[in-house]
This record gives sequence, C-alpha cells and structure tokens, in this order.
Amino acid sequence: MKRILVLGAGQSTPYLTHHLLVLAEEHGWHVTVGDLDRDLAQQRVGDHPRGTAISFDVNDEQVRSTQIKRADVVINMLAARFQDLVAWDCVAHGKHMLSVSYRNRAVRDLGPDAQRKGILLLTELGLDPGIDHMSAMSVIDGVHARGGKILRFCSYGSGIPAPNQEHNPLRYVITWNPRNVVMASEQGAQYLENDKIKIVPWHHVFHHTWPVEVDGVGTLEAYPNRDSIAYMKTFGLQHVRTMIRATLRYPGWSETWEKIVRIGLPNENLRIPRLGERSYREVVEMFLPMTNVDELVETRLARFLGISPTGKIMENLTWLGLFSDEEVGCEGETPAAMMIHLLKQKLPLVPGMRDMVVIMHELDVEYGDSRSERITSTLVAEGEANGFTAMAKAVGLPTAVTAKLLMLGELKLTGSHIPTQRSIYEPVLREMAGAGLEFVENLQRLE
Amino acid sequence: MKRILVLGAGQSTPYLTHHLLVLAEEHGWHVTVGDLDRDLAQQRVGDHPRGTAISFDVNDEQVRSTQIKRADVVINMLAARFQDLVAWDCVAHGKHMLSVSYRNRAVRDLGPDAQRKGILLLTELGLDPGIDHMSAMSVIDGVHARGGKILRFCSYGSGIPAPNQEHNPLRYVITWNPRNVVMASEQGAQYLENDKIKIVPWHHVFHHTWPVEVDGVGTLEAYPNRDSIAYMKTFGLQHVRTMIRATLRYPGWSETWEKIVRIGLPNENLRIPRLGERSYREVVEMFLPMTNVDELVETRLARFLGISPTGKIMENLTWLGLFSDEEVGCEGETPAAMMIHLLKQKLPLVPGMRDMVVIMHELDVEYGDSRSERITSTLVAEGEANGFTAMAKAVGLPTAVTAKLLMLGELKLTGSHIPTQRSIYEPVLREMAGAGLEFVENLQRLE
Repeated sequence: MKRILVLGAGQSTPYLTHHLLVLAEEHGWHVTVGDLDRDLAQQRVGDHPRGTAISFDVNDEQVRSTQIKRADVVINMLAARFQDLVAWDCVAHGKHMLSVSYRNRAVRDLGPDAQRKGILLLTELGLDPGIDHMSAMSVIDGVHARGGKILRFCSYGSGIPAPNQEHNPLRYVITWNPRNVVMASEQGAQYLENDKIKIVPWHHVFHHTWPVEVDGVGTLEAYPNRDSIAYMKTFGLQHVRTMIRATLRYPGWSETWEKIVRIGLPNENLRIPRLGERSYREVVEMFLPMTNVDELVETRLARFLGISPTGKIMENLTWLGLFSDEEVGCEGETPAAMMIHLLKQKLPLVPGMRDMVVIMHELDVEYGDSRSERITSTLVAEGEANGFTAMAKAVGLPTAVTAKLLMLGELKLTGSHIPTQRSIYEPVLREMAGAGLEFVENLQRLE
Repeated sequence: MKRILVLGAGQSTPYLTHHLLVLAEEHGWHVTVGDLDRDLAQQRVGDHPRGTAISFDVNDEQVRSTQIKRADVVINMLAARFQDLVAWDCVAHGKHMLSVSYRNRAVRDLGPDAQRKGILLLTELGLDPGIDHMSAMSVIDGVHARGGKILRFCSYGSGIPAPNQEHNPLRYVITWNPRNVVMASEQGAQYLENDKIKIVPWHHVFHHTWPVEVDGVGTLEAYPNRDSIAYMKTFGLQHVRTMIRATLRYPGWSETWEKIVRIGLPNENLRIPRLGERSYREVVEMFLPMTNVDELVETRLARFLGISPTGKIMENLTWLGLFSDEEVGCEGETPAAMMIHLLKQKLPLVPGMRDMVVIMHELDVEYGDSRSERITSTLVAEGEANGFTAMAKAVGLPTAVTAKLLMLGELKLTGSHIPTQRSIYEPVLREMAGAGLEFVENLQRLE
C-alpha cells in the first residue's frame, strides 16, 4: 500500500489532512500524521480507516528514519528550522518531500543529490510562499507567450481576518505558526524600485509601509517581504525595473509592531530565568533604560519609544497586555516565546469568526507595438465560520494536489525546486479554482 | 603515533600550531593542520617534520570523517557555525574536541553521548570566552574557599591595539575572525544589575556603554557581551545581585559602530547581486530612504542617522571608506561580507604594530564578619612587534595546554563542558603565567 507521511499537525493542516484522507479513500493509500502532540495528530485523522496518528519527535533519529523509510511522499509541515533534517533523511531514503516553508540554502544545495536519487524536494508550496509563486508564474508565462516584456512586478500576500471580522484593535488573527508572526522580517528586506536596490534592516521594516488597494477589500498596508531580488532569476524577470514582494495587513498593525521590534521583544536568543512566573509588566521593564524607575512602566516606555503616552500605539500595546500584572505562564524562556504566547491568547480565531487570504500581483507590461498594460491578478478567499479557515485551505490544497500528482506518478520533476514549473502550477491552480480559490485577472491600458 | 588534528589555520592559530609542534617534538606526536586554503595550513606547519598540512573542507563528509577518525584530539578553530558538525563526528568516532567558540545548544546536548563515549567536548577555550572563564573561576573558587559571598561580579574582555599603537581613527585592529567583529552582539545582550534583569536589543547594544578604568591602560569603554545571566549558574553565582560580562574598546568605537548597525550593514541574509562590482557609496545608498536623491549620500546618511554631517562619527564612517567610489571587490554577496572585507583592509595589524589583550574581573565580596572587599584580577598582555600577537598567544595557549593534558591522559573529564573546572584552569593558568600572561590581583576594602 502506498503511503503519505504528514509531519506536524498544527493550525495549517486540518484541510490538508482532510483532503489527503479523501484521496487515500479513493486511491487505496494510507495517511500517517505525526506530531509531538499525538492527540493533535489524532484530531486531524479522526477515526478515518485510512489514517493513523503517531507521536513524532523530529529530533528522534530512529523514529524519523523509520517513518520516512515507510512513506512514498513526505509532507513536512514542521517549523522551518527542521527543514534540513527532514530533507536529508528524504534524500537518504529516496523519498519525495513537500514543504510549505521557505527553501533554505542547505535544501537548495541538496538538488543534485535529490536528482540522482530520482526524488523531488519541493518547498515554498503553501500560500505565501507558494500560491503566490504559482499564480505569478502563470501570469508571467502568459505575458511572455504573448511577447510582452515585464517592466514592473509587485506581488502581495496576506492572511488576515475577513472584512468586518477584525474584532480586535490590531485587526489581526493568528491562522498560522505564530512564531513566524513574532519573528517576521528578522532577516530584513530588500527589493528593486526603478532599477535601484533598496535595503531595509529589520528595525525599519515595519516603518517602511505603503497603502495598497485590493478590490472588494479596501485599503490595506504593505511592508516588504524578505529578499524580493532573489526571485528575479527564479521568475525569469532579470530585466524588470521594479520587483517587490510584500505582505499586507490592515492599516495600523505595522506602526504597532514596529514598536515591539524597537523594544527588542522578538528575540529568540536570550533566556530570561523563570520567565513563566514573571508578569508581562516586569518583563517589559527589563527592556527599558534604568532611569526614572519610580515612574510607571507605561510612561517610561512611551518616552523611550518617542510616542504619545495616550495615543493609539500605546493603546494597542496596553490592549495586547504588555503592561499586565498577570503571570506570563508561557513555555520557553525567550522574549519571543512570551510574545508567541501573548498573540495566541489575544489574537485567536474565535468560533464563528472568518479569516481571509489575499494574493495580488500587479505587472506592468510593454509590447513591441509600444502598447503598455497593467495586469492585476487577485485572489481573495474567505474561510468558513466554524469550518476550514481560508489559510488552512490555501496552504493545504497545493500540497495535497502535488502529493497526489507524485503518488500517481504524474509529476516527473526531480531535484530541489520551488513551484514555478508549469507541470506543478497548472494542475494546482485548476484544482484551486474548482475549490473556490480562483484568481481574477484585470487588464488596464497604460498611457 | 598519537595525533592532534587542528581544523582551521586562521589568524588566531600561529601560536597554537607552533606550540603544538614543539610538544609533538618532545612527546613523539604528530600535528595535522587542515584549512580550505592549503597554503595557509602549510604556513602554520612550515617544514616541521612532526607536522602535515592538508586541504580541508569541513562540508566534505568523507574527508572530515577520515581525518577525525585518525586523530586522538581534534582542535576545532573553524567558524562557530561548524561547531555541531565537527562535534557530531567527534562523538561518533570517540575523539576529544576542543574549540574556542561559544558553546551552542546542540553541543551542550551532546554531553551525555560524549560521556558514554568517554570523550570531552570542551568549548569556550580561547581568550574571551575562555581565559576569562578560567581566571574568573580561579578567583571565585578562592573566595568561596575563604567563606566569602560574592554580591557583584563584573568581567571585561578585549583584544585591541596596545596603547600608542592605535594608529587609526577607530583605534581598533583585526586580530581574530573579522566576521565576529561585524556581527558582534547580533543576539542582543542581557545582564543583572542590582537584582534587576536588563535586556538590550542589538540595535541598542553599542549605545549602551560605560567607562572602565584598566590599570596601566587608562579609560576604555565597555558594552554588554551577550547573555551574562546564563553564566550565573555556570559560575556558581546564583546569589549575586549584579552579573555583567562586557567587551572593552577604546572610547569612540561604539558610537561609530552603533551607526553601522543602525544603517543595517551587518546583515548576513540578504544577497546583493554583483556586490563585488559595485562601489561602497552605491551600496550604502541602498540603505537610505529614497528621498532627496539629488543630494550627496553623505548628507542623506547624516540626516537619516540624526548625526552631525561634519562630526566625528561621519569622519570615521568616511575614513572607513563607506562613501568611496572604489569597487567593493569582496567575496560573498551580503552586506556583512562587504563589511568584513572593509575591516580587513582598513584595520589590519600592520608590520611592527603590537596588539593587546585585556581580561579584568571585579568582584564585590562580603564575609561573615561583615567585612567587604573588592577584588580586581587583571591580565594585560601585549603582542610582539612582528612576532606572535597577544591574541594568538591568548587563544592558542589554553587550547595547546588542554590538548597536552588530554594527550598525556592527565585530564579525565568527559562530557560537554566549558573550562570552569579546576582540573583545567589550574594547569592552564600556571602555564600562561610562565609564558608571561599573568593575572594580577588587587584587594580593596569596601566601607
């Protein structure tokens, strides 16, 4: 019997595992879901006869190796830092690996080995990165087939509450790994604008925003997403004059989060002894200058950040609970662990609430006859209240479809890749459209 | 024949390899020195009959494994990021490993495995970390033996030009891995002061300085060095009220480097296409807001940083060459690679110039009879003009002495450690004193 192994059973996996179990039923396959928390894995599998839940610790070499050996396709939904470990084993045992994380250097370098073994290491296969690459390549290949020359490429991605569902002051909700929300942009960002490279270090990223209109949603704010320039070659866009990948939020998120970065809270390196037993207020005070210690932490923080003590940002930080006398009570000892704990508590997807995913590409294209046009390709999809989130669907579907292609032997690609090939994006985008995740294209003549 | 394997032949290794070859002569051992650059390894070995130079690529599993298998003691002088890789192989093949880098979590976690194999993984065995730990433990164990209670522990470490040898505006010189100078404090820092934890994020570390007097040297400036609190347990100092480890520079370094961090230049993640062919001025401009682009880069940078366009910091940045029209011409594509290249060019140890290492501990101790004293223990050692640098001596000696103890079977310790045990620090400090690297202790009665 052919087997799919899913590693990790977190917030992005319900739709994926559901879909895989349907496919398993249809094709006579088996799906194993592994997580550190076996109960969580069991929740994903339910009592489906084609599924098994197992306790899975990626650091346990024996278990990792045994499970990977038994599988035909491995879907790695674990945190990005385990990507190498799983990829190495997949190459060693000659198994395909699919992952939704950004591809790192080690996995890129495994390309030739994967090719020799006849397997595929396919990363960046979720929403963003993932669907954004696939839909971008679909538009780009179309333009090139029509003889167009792309001069400007801007691409936006987001997972946020659906309009009128933003029931908290930050207008945000956690629908994926909160670690990635807390550590967002830690590597800084760079992009190309009018032939000029622009570099933005981490502590400036969330100040470096601009408004973006999305049809049917309204005005959102964008901040630059990691290294946009690296995708010029990948997308075959070496000659564009502007190349920007960015992330969208409801306006206001970034000005607040920028202050959280300035304070220094997103830090995964320093360990605060007995962090769990301390209060948020006590921890925040550790980041402040040791002057005017008789004043309120709030007053000192506002002065330190140079913001109004009574303005919107302070209101948000207060609402978030940074000045609370409550015990932190988190697992882990780093300031980042505290922030993850806080976001999970304050920004959960509450029952009945709907999330939304947005992907939007904007391409300025020139044709030989000096005609120019702006192409906009947009996906806006909302989740179901009390059902699958839009995020789970958008992350799970590309992975499930690609797994199916591999299981059926319909995808012959080997090596280390991200999903820019037509052989991947065509079937994925087709099935997505069938599932209600459809891109709408618009053309506008430029003068 | 018993064998020592030295991995890496960089700037810190001349004294180490020299000393090991003398020991090899004396005891009938063999020393193999491996580096990516075989010629550099050959320089270290010279034509010594007891030495062999080899080309060594740590990423080549075959070579790594073969060489480690043949050795009795492995001295790992490679960049910190290769620590795991070498440690794993040393455990697998049952060989001792010595390293001068900070111990990471993976190597700490290898402790039980190392113990089972009967081997020692000893890290933080250079100057700082290294000699600082050893000399600190020597003082601390002495105080505890006399029944004293330590209330305040401050420890300073440094490798800088000797006084009157600071022939550049930054008063600094590269005597160790320049990567670590460029990326210094990227993890942020924390320490304990009067029972309060103080956390300093990266972009503030170099603004968070204070003056320190060192006997025979004068006033230096200190900035907090990584996680001081983590060493409270290691040093048996759980009950101190103040615990600070800091790094010393000549005054002025930090206010300049803080601006380099603010600009965002120490970044190892973003890759700038064709970096080597661009000019420094062009690269620095990438970090500036895209406003007033007709103005000079200098003017825009000064405004962006909020510093005087004609002040000392701008003078330093200019002297360093950040506004130069010269081609960068570096290997590597990241802004950090450019800064490493620049520092190597601008801050080299020129022939005839002498460097200096400084370690200073300051402990406030209370005794049962309510007597209080301040103990200062200081090492100030200068390098030889045109001979061994103080840095190479200070980094090489502890490693060489410990290797000797292991080769002679005189050190029975197994597991993963840093050098806080008497069985290590006593012989090392004794041989250091013999080689002119002696700590001077001072007592001062506190009222």
